[in-house]
Amino acid sequence: MKDDCVFCKIINGEIPTNKIYEDDEVISFLSIDPVTYGHTLIIPKKHFTDYTDIDLETLNYINKIGKKIYKMLWENLKCDGMKLVQNNGTPQEVKHYHLHLIPIFDNEPSGKDDFEKVLKEIKNGN
Amino acid sequence: MKDDCVFCKIINGEIPTNKIYEDDEVISFLSIDPVTYGHTLIIPKKHFTDYTDIDLETLNYINKIGKKIYKMLWENLKCDGMKLVQNNGTPQEVKHYHLHLIPIFDNEPSGKDDFEKVLKEIKNGN
Repeated sequence: MKDDCVFCKIINGEIPTNKIYEDDEVISFLSIDPVTYGHTLIIPKKHFTDYTDIDLETLNYINKIGKKIYKMLWENLKCDGMKLVQNNGTPQEVKHYHLHLIPIFDNEPSGKDDFEKVLKEIKNGN
Repeated sequence: MKDDCVFCKIINGEIPTNKIYEDDEVISFLSIDPVTYGHTLIIPKKHFTDYTDIDLETLNYINKIGKKIYKMLWENLKCDGMKLVQNNGTPQEVKHYHLHLIPIFDNEPSGKDDFEKVLKEIKNGN
């Protein structure tokens, strides 16, 4: 827990989020500033700055859960592609390790900022 | 080994490449179509299509080596950021799992297509 970290505040429940998945180690939620419809983040609950800082065990667990979230997004949003992105240094906005899952569509649905709708679709597939 | 896969042909030695690292499991080389100076790929030697297809053990190993390659790029190219990108489906050009390491610079050096120069700098740090 890092006091001035917005993601630590989400984990802590101080800032509300559109949660897709949570367990003891990680949390996954919709990006507040989505690049595409269904843009999702996965973060470790322990504060790691970036790819160099995060330990391999946690990184491996993120991929284990990442594969499940990926499948959920792919099947329920019916996307045509997925970009996995993880930024470090200058392009990294929040300095708490986060993996972006960015669905790509041949015909992207409108309403990527209608988080209630997007979340329902990801969870229920409709 | 998949006969019509360009990355399998690189692994097999049929197509030459600008190699940064190689062991029994993975190979890392300069992207032939670099987005930025020092744009590098890491791929498993076994043919996996994408993030859903690759097994967790191999993915974990790619991250283990990925951290070393990342450090080499960061220290020797003196970049200011790094984007890790892995494409699937429509945005994925070669259908053999590959992780992009894309160095980001406040002031990017010129000559990203001068592979001999870039490779020398990554390996020797000058």
